[in-house]
Parts: sequence; structure tokens; C-alpha cells
Amino acid sequence: MSINAHSGLPEGGKARRVYLLLRDEISNGAFKDGTRLPGEHKLAEQFDVSRITIRRALEALAADGWIEKKTGAGSVVRTQEQAGQRLSADFATLIPHLVEMDRKTTARLLSFSYDSAPAAVAQALGIPEGADVQKAVRVRSSGGTPFSHLTTYVPKDIALSYDEADLATQPLFRLLERSGVSVESAHQTVTAALATPDVAEALEVSVGSPLLFVQRIVRDAGGQGVEHLSALYRPDLFRLEMDLARVGAGEARHWEPVIGGTSS
Amino acid sequence: MSINAHSGLPEGGKARRVYLLLRDEISNGAFKDGTRLPGEHKLAEQFDVSRITIRRALEALAADGWIEKKTGAGSVVRTQEQAGQRLSADFATLIPHLVEMDRKTTARLLSFSYDSAPAAVAQALGIPEGADVQKAVRVRSSGGTPFSHLTTYVPKDIALSYDEADLATQPLFRLLERSGVSVESAHQTVTAALATPDVAEALEVSVGSPLLFVQRIVRDAGGQGVEHLSALYRPDLFRLEMDLARVGAGEARHWEPVIGGTSS
Repeated sequence: MSINAHSGLPEGGKARRVYLLLRDEISNGAFKDGTRLPGEHKLAEQFDVSRITIRRALEALAADGWIEKKTGAGSVVRTQEQAGQRLSADFATLIPHLVEMDRKTTARLLSFSYDSAPAAVAQALGIPEGADVQKAVRVRSSGGTPFSHLTTYVPKDIALSYDEADLATQPLFRLLERSGVSVESAHQTVTAALATPDVAEALEVSVGSPLLFVQRIVRDAGGQGVEHLSALYRPDLFRLEMDLARVGAGEARHWEPVIGGTSS
Repeated sequence: MSINAHSGLPEGGKARRVYLLLRDEISNGAFKDGTRLPGEHKLAEQFDVSRITIRRALEALAADGWIEKKTGAGSVVRTQEQAGQRLSADFATLIPHLVEMDRKTTARLLSFSYDSAPAAVAQALGIPEGADVQKAVRVRSSGGTPFSHLTTYVPKDIALSYDEADLATQPLFRLLERSGVSVESAHQTVTAALATPDVAEALEVSVGSPLLFVQRIVRDAGGQGVEHLSALYRPDLFRLEMDLARVGAGEARHWEPVIGGTSS
């Protein structure tokens, strides 16, 4: 199964769109391994396209190993090889998991520069607009397959303690602590985004694929922003997981995260 | 600004694809309010399409209120009305926030049926494959704008304590507790997915838009699964937020979520 296959279908065409939507449903588990996809006629109706378009999308899915076409039995979903590849991070112990992951994965530095901070980054970090920041773009891979695209901004005075070679081999987080920064808190936002052309190329996915989008602002003991991270993750390879426990009694009963909870 | 505008561009066409990608970058904050988009020539190069395609996408973005075209100054991003609409849930106190949100929002029941459990749902809930479950599909709106598409499965014996009218007016969570279920724990997975035709229609977004995808398995005191939830959220209206604190000393120093932390 080649997860990175670009399926041979023209970008922007209807068959490509159907291919991406069905592949997304398979990879997010809406269609499980071994289940049968709806028939061509039903899919054509659902996606409001011709049966020929559906057939081309199904052929590409079969060629890329996402489904198996069985005579008389339609298309059967095949995801078993995929499942083993998936990495996950636990919400309740999120960053330790990421740091541990750093050890098993490799990073490739796409760019390293000093530039003036974009307005939104300056505001989030609490530094003057236009102040110098170190910007790095990295792609992280596991077993040769890229799964995250990371853009980081660090105030210049802190960033001078590391260089390109450090960033290509060590997590930024460790470099900050090595430089004497007392990291104290972080605020994190999680949402979804589409893969733009440059990110799609780096992550080896189609333009317009869905990505998990995490933004994190890390602060030191004085509340000063020391790192601004925008991370885009392939949902077929990376997801966030958390365990919750229901605690308290009566009206005050509520959910709390399980600290250090194990993910199923 | 009409966030739900379908921009008049043909589905599956190149201009529509560029429109969706740029709109996504604006709504996820990659292009902030007041910033200038790159010029037509640069965008054409970046997206590998003609300038005419770029111009059509920009005209649709302007018509839908996402950008303002200024003579000689190109296209300026306009998101200020959008920002106030956004709802968010705190990771560390996730479900209370959702319950509180239930009070401010309205739910529409799209379907309510009893059926045999799909294999994946049965496995997650720990019930026999094919056992009867109550399946409901709801869309939740805030101020008349739909922001989440919720599919829930509940084992039949528990579900018999509520009916369609209950589900259309009360959170499922409350109905479960009302029926005497002792809810104790939950496991939650967060990732991203594309809007399929039926979900796109319900959430009033374009087919192929990015959505935040949350799956939650809720268990009772005996570990029995009592609810299987698949929730799809519009990222322009809903995101997850969490505060983290760095605790412990030396090698044992690590991140923990701030329980009840306020989101910025």
C-alpha cells in the first residue's frame, strides 16, 4: 500500500475529489477494514457525479491499495497495513509523548532564517511588532514517511544559542531549555486545515487533504513568549488522544483529564 | 460577511479549489485581518494555475467578504466579524464547556433510528457485533449557523429511556444520566477530516472543506460502553484549547494540563 500515491488522477478534477473524500473516510475509520463500499450507482448519486467518475476514483483507490475490487462483491476496504503505522499523542501528557516521539523520528530542516516577526506572532509572543525572530520550518518523518510540518518562531536573543545543525538534530524544546530558558506554561489550540501546495509537497499528500492543525505558544516563568509553533499533522498517521474521568458529586460532577492516562 | 456563501464557483473546478484553500488560510489565521494577500502572479505560481483562475477565486473571496480588493494595494484580508463568532472548548474541562454550550446553542435532529451496530461501533462499546443500538444524527447551531455534526450510538437497553423529542431538546449526556447510567470515564480521539456531501450540506460548507473530527467512547462504572460519538466541527467556528503547565524537577520535569485553566 502506498499511502503517498497521487493516484494518477488530474488535480482539481471530479474523480480526484471523490478519490480524496473516499480515502479520507477510509483513513478516518468511517469505512473500516473489510467492509464493502456502497455500489457505483449509489456513490454516483451521493457525490452527484457520473458512474464513470466513480469508476475512475475506485480504480485509483484500488491501485493505491485502499480498496480491493472483488468480482460480484464490489469494493472491499483494505486498511490493515495502515493501522500499525499510526502514531498518537496523549492529551494529558502531550508534550512528553512528543519528545519521546522525537527520538524515534527524524526531522528535516526546510528553512532557517532570521526575520521580523509577523504581527500575529509578535502579538502572541508579547514582543514588539517587527522584532527579530528566528523562523524555522521542519518536516518530521517516521520510518521515512513525513507526518508533521512544523513552523516555529523564537525571539532572536534566545535563538542565538542554537544553530541550523542543532535544529536539524534536536527538538527545539530541548534547545530552549539548554539555553537556560525556564519554560513554565503553554497554551495550545487544535483545529483542522487543508494542505496548501507547499505543505502538501512536504507531507507527500494531495493538495486539499485534511490536516490536524495545532498552534502552541510556550512561555517562560515571567510570562514572556519563548516559542510560537504552528504544526500540521497528517490525520492518517497522527492523532491526539485523551482519557477523561467523571469526578465530584451531584451538580458539581464534571469531567477531568486523567493525568498520565494510557491511551487505548 | 456570509460565511456560508458557496461563492458561485463550480464544484470541483480549479478556481473553487483555490478559493477553498485561501479561505481556509484566512479562517485558520495564516493570513490575519488587515494583511495583504500575495499578488495574482505569485498566487498563480504557488497554486500552479493561470492568473485568470486566481482572479476568479479572489473575486469570489471578495464577494463573500473574506477579502477587500483595494486599487493598487491588492487584496486585504477582512476577518474581524468572523472572530467574534468563534466558540471554543477547553481541553482540561472539555465536557463542561460542551454542556454549557448546549444551553446557548440549538440542536436539530436529522435522523433517529434503531439498527444493528456497525462492527467498529460494537467493538468500541464492547457489545456483540450486530447488537441493537439507537443511532441519532444531530446538527448543532449557534446563532442560526451550524457548527457541529454529531452521530451517536447508544446500546438499545439504555436508549429506551429517551425518545426523539428528548434528543432534539436535551444533550444526550444528560439523558444518559437521567436514565440512571453511572458515567465514569471516556476516551477521546481528535483528528481532521474532509466534509463529505451529506455533512457539507448539513454544516453549510463546501464539499471537501476541512473539519475537526472528534471520536469519544463513554463508559459506565463497570467499563461498559454507553455512548459512541463521532463529531465533526467547522474549524472556523469551533476549536479545542488547553493550558499546559511545566511541573516537576530535573529529568522528571514534564507538562501537565491545567485543570479548569482559562483559555486565552
